[in-house]
Amino acid sequence: MHVLPFIQDLAAVMLLAGLTTVLCQRLRQPVVLGYIIAGVLVGPYTFPVVFIHEDETIRTLAELGMVLLLFALGLEFSLKKMREVGGPALLAALCEIGLMLGLGYLLGRGFGWSPLDALFLGAMLSMSSTTIIMKALDDLHLKRERFAQLMFGILIIEDVLAVVLMTLLTGIAGTGGLAATAALAVIGRLALFMLVSLVAGLLVVPPVVDYIARVSRDDVLLVVVLGLCFGFCLLVTELGYSIALGAFMIGALVGESASVARIERIVAPVRDMFSAIFFVSIGMLIDPQHLVDYWQPILLITLAVVLGKILSSGFGAFVAGSDARTSLRVGMGLAQIGEFSFVIASLGLSLGVTGKQLYPIAVAVSAITTFLTPYLIRAADPLAQWFGRHLPVAITGPADAYTDWVGGIQLQGQSAVVVRMVRRLCWHILVNVMLVAALFLVAAHLYRKGWFHWPMLAGHRVAERALAWSLAALLSLPMVVAVYRKAEALGLLLAELGISERFGGAQTRRMRGMAARLVPLGAMGVLGLLVAALASIILPPRQVALLLVVLLALLVWLFWRLLVQMHARLQGALRDTLDRPALEDRPAGHQKPAERGRKLPDGSVVTTPSSLPSTDEGRKMP
Amino acid sequence: MHVLPFIQDLAAVMLLAGLTTVLCQRLRQPVVLGYIIAGVLVGPYTFPVVFIHEDETIRTLAELGMVLLLFALGLEFSLKKMREVGGPALLAALCEIGLMLGLGYLLGRGFGWSPLDALFLGAMLSMSSTTIIMKALDDLHLKRERFAQLMFGILIIEDVLAVVLMTLLTGIAGTGGLAATAALAVIGRLALFMLVSLVAGLLVVPPVVDYIARVSRDDVLLVVVLGLCFGFCLLVTELGYSIALGAFMIGALVGESASVARIERIVAPVRDMFSAIFFVSIGMLIDPQHLVDYWQPILLITLAVVLGKILSSGFGAFVAGSDARTSLRVGMGLAQIGEFSFVIASLGLSLGVTGKQLYPIAVAVSAITTFLTPYLIRAADPLAQWFGRHLPVAITGPADAYTDWVGGIQLQGQSAVVVRMVRRLCWHILVNVMLVAALFLVAAHLYRKGWFHWPMLAGHRVAERALAWSLAALLSLPMVVAVYRKAEALGLLLAELGISERFGGAQTRRMRGMAARLVPLGAMGVLGLLVAALASIILPPRQVALLLVVLLALLVWLFWRLLVQMHARLQGALRDTLDRPALEDRPAGHQKPAERGRKLPDGSVVTTPSSLPSTDEGRKMP
Repeated sequence: MHVLPFIQDLAAVMLLAGLTTVLCQRLRQPVVLGYIIAGVLVGPYTFPVVFIHEDETIRTLAELGMVLLLFALGLEFSLKKMREVGGPALLAALCEIGLMLGLGYLLGRGFGWSPLDALFLGAMLSMSSTTIIMKALDDLHLKRERFAQLMFGILIIEDVLAVVLMTLLTGIAGTGGLAATAALAVIGRLALFMLVSLVAGLLVVPPVVDYIARVSRDDVLLVVVLGLCFGFCLLVTELGYSIALGAFMIGALVGESASVARIERIVAPVRDMFSAIFFVSIGMLIDPQHLVDYWQPILLITLAVVLGKILSSGFGAFVAGSDARTSLRVGMGLAQIGEFSFVIASLGLSLGVTGKQLYPIAVAVSAITTFLTPYLIRAADPLAQWFGRHLPVAITGPADAYTDWVGGIQLQGQSAVVVRMVRRLCWHILVNVMLVAALFLVAAHLYRKGWFHWPMLAGHRVAERALAWSLAALLSLPMVVAVYRKAEALGLLLAELGISERFGGAQTRRMRGMAARLVPLGAMGVLGLLVAALASIILPPRQVALLLVVLLALLVWLFWRLLVQMHARLQGALRDTLDRPALEDRPAGHQKPAERGRKLPDGSVVTTPSSLPSTDEGRKMP
Repeated sequence: MHVLPFIQDLAAVMLLAGLTTVLCQRLRQPVVLGYIIAGVLVGPYTFPVVFIHEDETIRTLAELGMVLLLFALGLEFSLKKMREVGGPALLAALCEIGLMLGLGYLLGRGFGWSPLDALFLGAMLSMSSTTIIMKALDDLHLKRERFAQLMFGILIIEDVLAVVLMTLLTGIAGTGGLAATAALAVIGRLALFMLVSLVAGLLVVPPVVDYIARVSRDDVLLVVVLGLCFGFCLLVTELGYSIALGAFMIGALVGESASVARIERIVAPVRDMFSAIFFVSIGMLIDPQHLVDYWQPILLITLAVVLGKILSSGFGAFVAGSDARTSLRVGMGLAQIGEFSFVIASLGLSLGVTGKQLYPIAVAVSAITTFLTPYLIRAADPLAQWFGRHLPVAITGPADAYTDWVGGIQLQGQSAVVVRMVRRLCWHILVNVMLVAALFLVAAHLYRKGWFHWPMLAGHRVAERALAWSLAALLSLPMVVAVYRKAEALGLLLAELGISERFGGAQTRRMRGMAARLVPLGAMGVLGLLVAALASIILPPRQVALLLVVLLALLVWLFWRLLVQMHARLQGALRDTLDRPALEDRPAGHQKPAERGRKLPDGSVVTTPSSLPSTDEGRKMP
């Protein structure tokens, strides 16, 4: 039975981790520290005894631990809260990444490393560790606080930017330089992917999960949820993005379902088991000898990480409008590097462009900063108070004034309502345009994969292309109609605002009408061009395309009402999912989320298609 | 990242299993069936698409699933209940194994197979599947019923006997025959091992687990419990016993702790995840083509398993005193083969003594009978009622009379009390003798491993042996004293009963006194011989041994009271653990099991060392 070495490894990991964590709890130290110490003890470098026989398996399970940690993090994440912290988080993340990239590069050059080595060091230092921060906040019971929400926002944006960064690094390593268009394409693709999966996922995942939660026992629900998690991770990696991003996104999607509390409860032990393995495996990578050999760069880089991150993220958070105390807490919480740094270090190794010293240094710095994280988080509050008492008013005064000023930047009265309406309409148009684009991209992808190579089409390329194109067009009709309607509303609104009675005089009405027509026509034109450009591979010959467009226009004319209703219903479902309060654990079969949607006065919205923006009042899109 | 194929496999398994189990739940079919169907679909034989890329990993995780299933089963198992069903379960298990061995052998010979093939087939058919029955009973919410308890008893005894059987089969395959002494040695070693680990485990495991449950959060507790589980499994397999036996035993030990409800709750999701993989992996082994190729033997063997097991286990349960309805339920519940059959089939293959047809047949029969199990369990009750209504009274009358008669075999009044006292004293003596023997065996083992090869002994073999021997003797002193005291009590009791006033006349008192002395002296003699025989390797030369014995005797004389107290305390701790009611989930830090022990009037027991059996009233040993 070859299962024995595996059980033996697990036994060694679990027994030692149990011992060290119980000890850490008694000594009031963070549990993560216990896991890492267990890893050092059980690892191949500390004792001459071999504890772990199948490194490979343990490392695979550790990856699984990271996936489950991020999935559970996603479960607790709320899209609604993200909307609140989105802007500040983006600003703070960009501050941090920019500053740390520069600092890392300078440091690497200072050690006399090659430019590429230094660039990779910079990239490694720019990413904080979501999993380690999660665990530390959980240990300290701080997860629900406002600074923690802001940190989550920063971390998610970092995770997304890490993908971009890694793609860019690969490009630089290959060619020695980087085209701006390539970078933009990467970012655009990623944004499109995230938007489409969020919208489609919100429509599909929460209802499915709620249905299964209603009819199933815990074990079946767990299997389904894990299946969704792993399946989505797979899809995301197939598309070239990080598994961490996928795990987090599907977690956030499942987290919008009504049965999220029950799911969190049954996923928690599985996460705990594998995340223990994850943290132990980090400890296992530490060779005490390396700490001795590279003590100088390790010490310097650790110092740079801690100070640099506190300053850069703290500064970013402050600029984005957080008060000094929150900014300090955010900065001290983010002061570590973690899993992404290892991934970036491995990338450099596998591309053959970096020296061998990068990986052990990354692990050592990550271990030390991980170790420091809980202490820093705990020290942030006292430190903020100390600063508050001891810093001269010449510094604290203007700082407070800035925070108040940023907090006070809010449009008020009539113009605030108008700006909000315009912004919401623009969002709706953008989301729908991107959904249409995504539908055509998917159709083109499937066409390339030969999905439309049906026998009844007898190999006629034109017929296949026409089929793929028509299918995508048909599916996107509700979105196209929505774009038209929103653009119409936007046009009317803008015309009303832009063409005042004084300017237009007697012609005001006619001028407004013309201006209002321009906006939807322009939107449709842009949409058409976008579709033609993105899905050129399935664009049928001109005559066929024209015929199809006429046919579709006829369809739209005939079924306008139905299409408007379909889109309203989809949008309503999305809004319901997002606005539903998270329910606590209830016995199965008790909850009927579908009915809650119908109670809303959807009809009033649907039956006034060309009335003014008031139709969109109360609507929220992600 | 090589973690991808692994995540991909998990995703395929979980997604398909989720789909099939939800479907099975909707169709009111057992969930296990859903897992097995998912396994067939995802397996390498059904579709030309490769779903699973790393068979090896999935199979390892499936083994882990079996371990966790048996561990969870052990958690729910109660040693107290086992004492109630022990006798009948042993009888029923022996009936089933004997009859099915014979039936399988005859069937194999009937197919024209070699005697060894036929013997292995018999062994395969004799074992039912603990995991599958557990899952089915859980699905049907029948786990707490009396017939389920009896089935658990039978299954545990089967698991133990499977180990014996496999050792015997290996012997037969090697030599073509079997020495009775070898078989007895195997059984004796196993019994000694189980007894020692139960007693030692009950003293150590529940207090440790309770302590950790009190001071720890769920994640640390889970890690510790899993560490204990895997560690003990490892120990058990090191000693040559099955991992399933180890997982079950440590589960039963942890299950005696006060925080068992909380542990069950946090272990359940981990078990669910891996047991899903376990059942799916059974389905993956099924090649639909094999079902076609061997349909005749598969059908016949399936029929033999179902009918043979219903009859043999039902008969065994009935003979052991269950009523007809319970017997039928037990028989129909046990009517399948499972994991042990695969293990035995693999054993035959690896020894090179069986044909290649055995393994696929075992899997197919196991899959079909697994599929049937829930239906059989559900059908048992209606069938029993049908029989009750339609069988002639000429059959049901005597059957009921027999059950009543067996149920009525209970000694009453004075003699019942005496028999119970004698039995309890014999148990105590036996357990303590075995504990002493185990101590010396462990010392001998450690001596052979070189643990006493200390520098300060400067390689003197005699000194090393004397040290090992003295250590074992010192540790066993409380048990030796206990043996002496219990044997003394037994002697007095037997003398009182055996030498009546009429027979002894005036000499009664003196004769009783002499007879009472004989029993403890005999017990000490047997103990001495046993120790000398078992630990001959560490027996020092005669003079040294004599000196040590004199020293030890002096110690006993000096510290008699202390030794008696030590033993009483150990026994009290054991009794407390066993008799403590299982507590429900409570917040950590709320429970103080240690204090409950102290409240009992232990002193009164300890201070009357040589009074008669009344001292043992109320004591219970496992």
